[in-house]
Amino acid sequence: MIVILKPNAPQDEYDKLVKWLSSFDVKVNAITGTQKQILGLVGDTSKIDIEAVRAQEIVENVQRVQEPYKNANRKFHPENTVIDVEGRKIGDGSLQVIAGPCSVESEEQIITTAIAVKEAGATMLRGGAFKPRTSPYSFQGLRADGIELLLQAKKVTGLPIVTEIMSLAHIDLFADVDVIQVGARNMQNFELLKALGHSDKPVLLKRGLANTIEELLMSAEYIMAGGNDKVMLCERGIRTFETMTRNTLDISAVPLLKQLSHLPVVVDPSHATGMTKLVEPLSLASLVCGADALIIEVHNDPKNALSDGAQSLTPAQFAQVMKNIKKQADFMGKNIG
Amino acid sequence: MIVILKPNAPQDEYDKLVKWLSSFDVKVNAITGTQKQILGLVGDTSKIDIEAVRAQEIVENVQRVQEPYKNANRKFHPENTVIDVEGRKIGDGSLQVIAGPCSVESEEQIITTAIAVKEAGATMLRGGAFKPRTSPYSFQGLRADGIELLLQAKKVTGLPIVTEIMSLAHIDLFADVDVIQVGARNMQNFELLKALGHSDKPVLLKRGLANTIEELLMSAEYIMAGGNDKVMLCERGIRTFETMTRNTLDISAVPLLKQLSHLPVVVDPSHATGMTKLVEPLSLASLVCGADALIIEVHNDPKNALSDGAQSLTPAQFAQVMKNIKKQADFMGKNIG
Amino acid sequence: MIVILKPNAPQDEYDKLVKWLSSFDVKVNAITGTQKQILGLVGDTSKIDIEAVRAQEIVENVQRVQEPYKNANRKFHPENTVIDVEGRKIGDGSLQVIAGPCSVESEEQIITTAIAVKEAGATMLRGGAFKPRTSPYSFQGLRADGIELLLQAKKVTGLPIVTEIMSLAHIDLFADVDVIQVGARNMQNFELLKALGHSDKPVLLKRGLANTIEELLMSAEYIMAGGNDKVMLCERGIRTFETMTRNTLDISAVPLLKQLSHLPVVVDPSHATGMTKLVEPLSLASLVCGADALIIEVHNDPKNALSDGAQSLTPAQFAQVMKNIKKQADFMGKNIG
Amino acid sequence: MIVILKPNAPQDEYDKLVKWLSSFDVKVNAITGTQKQILGLVGDTSKIDIEAVRAQEIVENVQRVQEPYKNANRKFHPENTVIDVEGRKIGDGSLQVIAGPCSVESEEQIITTAIAVKEAGATMLRGGAFKPRTSPYSFQGLRADGIELLLQAKKVTGLPIVTEIMSLAHIDLFADVDVIQVGARNMQNFELLKALGHSDKPVLLKRGLANTIEELLMSAEYIMAGGNDKVMLCERGIRTFETMTRNTLDISAVPLLKQLSHLPVVVDPSHATGMTKLVEPLSLASLVCGADALIIEVHNDPKNALSDGAQSLTPAQFAQVMKNIKKQADFMGKNIG
Repeated sequence: MIVILKPNAPQDEYDKLVKWLSSFDVKVNAITGTQKQILGLVGDTSKIDIEAVRAQEIVENVQRVQEPYKNANRKFHPENTVIDVEGRKIGDGSLQVIAGPCSVESEEQIITTAIAVKEAGATMLRGGAFKPRTSPYSFQGLRADGIELLLQAKKVTGLPIVTEIMSLAHIDLFADVDVIQVGARNMQNFELLKALGHSDKPVLLKRGLANTIEELLMSAEYIMAGGNDKVMLCERGIRTFETMTRNTLDISAVPLLKQLSHLPVVVDPSHATGMTKLVEPLSLASLVCGADALIIEVHNDPKNALSDGAQSLTPAQFAQVMKNIKKQADFMGKNIG
Repeated sequence: MIVILKPNAPQDEYDKLVKWLSSFDVKVNAITGTQKQILGLVGDTSKIDIEAVRAQEIVENVQRVQEPYKNANRKFHPENTVIDVEGRKIGDGSLQVIAGPCSVESEEQIITTAIAVKEAGATMLRGGAFKPRTSPYSFQGLRADGIELLLQAKKVTGLPIVTEIMSLAHIDLFADVDVIQVGARNMQNFELLKALGHSDKPVLLKRGLANTIEELLMSAEYIMAGGNDKVMLCERGIRTFETMTRNTLDISAVPLLKQLSHLPVVVDPSHATGMTKLVEPLSLASLVCGADALIIEVHNDPKNALSDGAQSLTPAQFAQVMKNIKKQADFMGKNIG
Repeated sequence: MIVILKPNAPQDEYDKLVKWLSSFDVKVNAITGTQKQILGLVGDTSKIDIEAVRAQEIVENVQRVQEPYKNANRKFHPENTVIDVEGRKIGDGSLQVIAGPCSVESEEQIITTAIAVKEAGATMLRGGAFKPRTSPYSFQGLRADGIELLLQAKKVTGLPIVTEIMSLAHIDLFADVDVIQVGARNMQNFELLKALGHSDKPVLLKRGLANTIEELLMSAEYIMAGGNDKVMLCERGIRTFETMTRNTLDISAVPLLKQLSHLPVVVDPSHATGMTKLVEPLSLASLVCGADALIIEVHNDPKNALSDGAQSLTPAQFAQVMKNIKKQADFMGKNIG
Repeated sequence: MIVILKPNAPQDEYDKLVKWLSSFDVKVNAITGTQKQILGLVGDTSKIDIEAVRAQEIVENVQRVQEPYKNANRKFHPENTVIDVEGRKIGDGSLQVIAGPCSVESEEQIITTAIAVKEAGATMLRGGAFKPRTSPYSFQGLRADGIELLLQAKKVTGLPIVTEIMSLAHIDLFADVDVIQVGARNMQNFELLKALGHSDKPVLLKRGLANTIEELLMSAEYIMAGGNDKVMLCERGIRTFETMTRNTLDISAVPLLKQLSHLPVVVDPSHATGMTKLVEPLSLASLVCGADALIIEVHNDPKNALSDGAQSLTPAQFAQVMKNIKKQADFMGKNIG
């Protein structure tokens, strides 16, 4: 941590500051120039609150040198974390494809879709039981019943299931779910993250619409700090001024997250733009950038979907996209599944 | 709602679409030009899911004509909503000033600060018991004990208290709190909003960092749809590319929210930028733009604050800011309190 | 300047770096901790290219301690710069109100509008002769003829004129213009800025839609480096994800620019949102935040305006807005004009 | 174009509006519902200024149905435009790789780099002679001399040259340049675009940092409206709240631009993030998304580069990146060059 002081700080204030900083068990080095104005802190600075330092009157600015995340940091954990979901490995160099509808709507819908996506090559099933919707008047999901239907679809197809949690009050309902998803709107619902830290289930953590890559890693850190290391980081588009696409897929986040962290990286090319035509190119782009998994919306009947139909592929379109994903994966020597 | 069709839609697809739309009890008017390409829906379109329409194959685009919020809409409720908090009125043309520390840290800290802000003219006390922090290693608040301390401070000063809820699991702890705050990170925590809809407590709803004005109103709608009309809308800065300030205060949101909605509008000039020097000018700007209340961070000892010290005013600075706020309020004929 | 090194930099690379940095006539101080990892540069670092330092293989990060602008910096020029435009003073504590149509369209239009805005209290006349339009098929301005018409309007009303330059090829046409405006889209048209640095005319420099406050100051620095100190900084809204307003007025930029720089600050409340109803509250907000001038769109017949009619006030609306601006200015002890 | 009226518009205002709109040679269709509130305009609406319509008092909102660009629109020109640059074809399904330093610095530097990038497989040479720099104190480029040196490098290597123009005053200096680049900061320098519309040289048009995809197409339209159809659209990253990368590459823009327009699409993976490690994955992502060309920064000695060294590859790194680009291009059946 580097502390930049205001010019002409009074000596007694300066001495007090150095004493206080030293109390955190770090070495405080002053750069002695024409003016005493920079302090370098050497040692473990993770216990020092950067905001508290910034609040000191003689401090002009503070900068961290070390990343504020540890458990998620590749520096301290160089090998890839591999998460095993009912035998499917995420993070081992293979590609997992998680497909299914935005919302679970009926037994017929989820079973039909599950069979179709499995046939096309998907390795896990997604489906929303609890749905975060901007409007209270929109369909809110089948909730507990939706999870039941997903479990039935799993029985029929053998596909592990991924579904979103919206409140820690529902956590018991997720006992048989294979992967718990934390949606973009809950990425900084810290009480929920803490609760998931005490779970032993894999968590698919989506990046918030206005959250930085570092904040995504800090939210993963919340879960890991509780003892749950099975976290997947998911890029799903951020909010920018561009209005033609619903969100802007930050493709650079994929290789960056792989460099900064040992956790697996998932991309959601469906929510990223809300346009079915872009799902294939963005899936391929994610693949060449190193993504470990894709999560793609498929609905057996998008035009009658109760939510987000506009971005869902039909099973036939998904089969076509999968064909091209497989070709590219083959070329790269990546197995699917 | 206006539905723009793709050119050369097949007649049978067109007929099916018109029939389906008509089933929602709205009148479907076609614009007959050189091509049949625009449908205007007249009637109550709030039950039609705009995404489902967009998903239809022959549809190119859809646009709402009516706002998707009703309870919060000034068109259906022209008079200002006035919320009574222990005798303080928010929304009646007066100005309320809510002041206090980011976090409650100790009995001495909260009582000292409460007495100081009351003396300077604040009309309510703020203080965080549950603290949303980016890092799991930062101070997370005193939680239940923090609420106890706030209640003590209320007993001493008579100031009603405003404090943030982070999970619906804690709702019972807020039984004696006067105003429940929903933080920016939870603005779209819909399960929490629904629970607050069944409460009878006033809710101070903060705008999310990447949420539009319309989304803020839709989140208010969630609370109101449950039967709780006592919602205050709070602008606290949005996330943009500018890095000199922590966030960018969207001052235009203040007069816009007052035009679109009958709900009271609050501004948080402290979190908006994270710079104490900007609290006064932004408070005055909010005032002339029509804000009903301000929420300002004050800490008896900012440099030893456990959170957000950098943006907290000292009691002396706050007294100075209040002097200028009062002058401006007097000039505008607004009472404080 | 602070240089953070990668851990375990080889000694010879380290020595080379220190030697190279020292060659810029600065003192290089190493923080000797457990690892040699931070260098503090003391002295005049403005000649060191921060990107060149960042490119060094053993460098992890670099941070400036000093602002990269000098001529525009209040630290080196504590008193306000006051610009005299035909007797109107900008920056001396008074308020100037620059009003007029987006585009000059005809003799009748500009003269009528000029007389009306003068009567309502405006102290300068704005009007576009060269118009930057997104579409090549939109009205592009009357160009040289537009400037002629502005000069006629000046003759009739005595109001100094402010008009936008779009290319340095046109600079001779601006010989009799009182203030040359550089539009948001040209804020980083550096060749144009350099040319204006050799002019002796006041320049009203608008902030670009995606430019930071620091970049605005650097563009001012371009003009000042050429010898022209008469620069006014104009906040006119930045581009964010919010779509309800055309742009988002960054009101915090006003007090910040006044703190960082001695140059006068102007606000454009018309372009900031594109909504006439917001012109008054945003004008008042700018005033209480310390703006030295406002630039407001007024058109004698907005619905037949050839550009940006939607954000133009009618003369009657402007007179009403001016009444409230005057009241607030009087209260603050500020003269208009 | 669809015009949404305010409720209860007076009949005479309504009649005047319909008459005025009809005067543009379009058919005005009213949707007759419970209230007369929507007008659909059928015919060629490109001459109607959307802002003028929005400014009408009884108008609440207006929406375009047709894209505002024509020459650049794939709907009116379904086949890909293929641009021939000294025998290299851009837009015919092959891949062109434009490589070279950010700035031309010396004869030795540009010749060495040109030979190296040619050897590694680049098909054109880039290099800045005029450099847009945020600071007036940074290296501004060798200007006319820089162009001379590029022409020498072309003589030696045979590589066509691409270089940026910053002012129409310099256009004569570009007589022997093969492709004229318009930088992000000049994307809406409309006077420059118009001048290039009268040139017969290919133009590489970079997207501005805060410009939408539609605005990029409108800027292309400016050039094409002047008669020059040889425009390449370049995605180079947009400005968002994320600070870890310099900009955010909007990868979705690549397939979208290919769908909306027949013009070739170029991606700049170097400026997009400013990080050399991301050049390879982003190049591959661009390739699978359909890019026709890449423009990559390579410098023979990045750590001594006078500009943007941090994002430049060394010739050895570039050779490695090219190897992987070639593999992927081979797999896709794309020729390089």
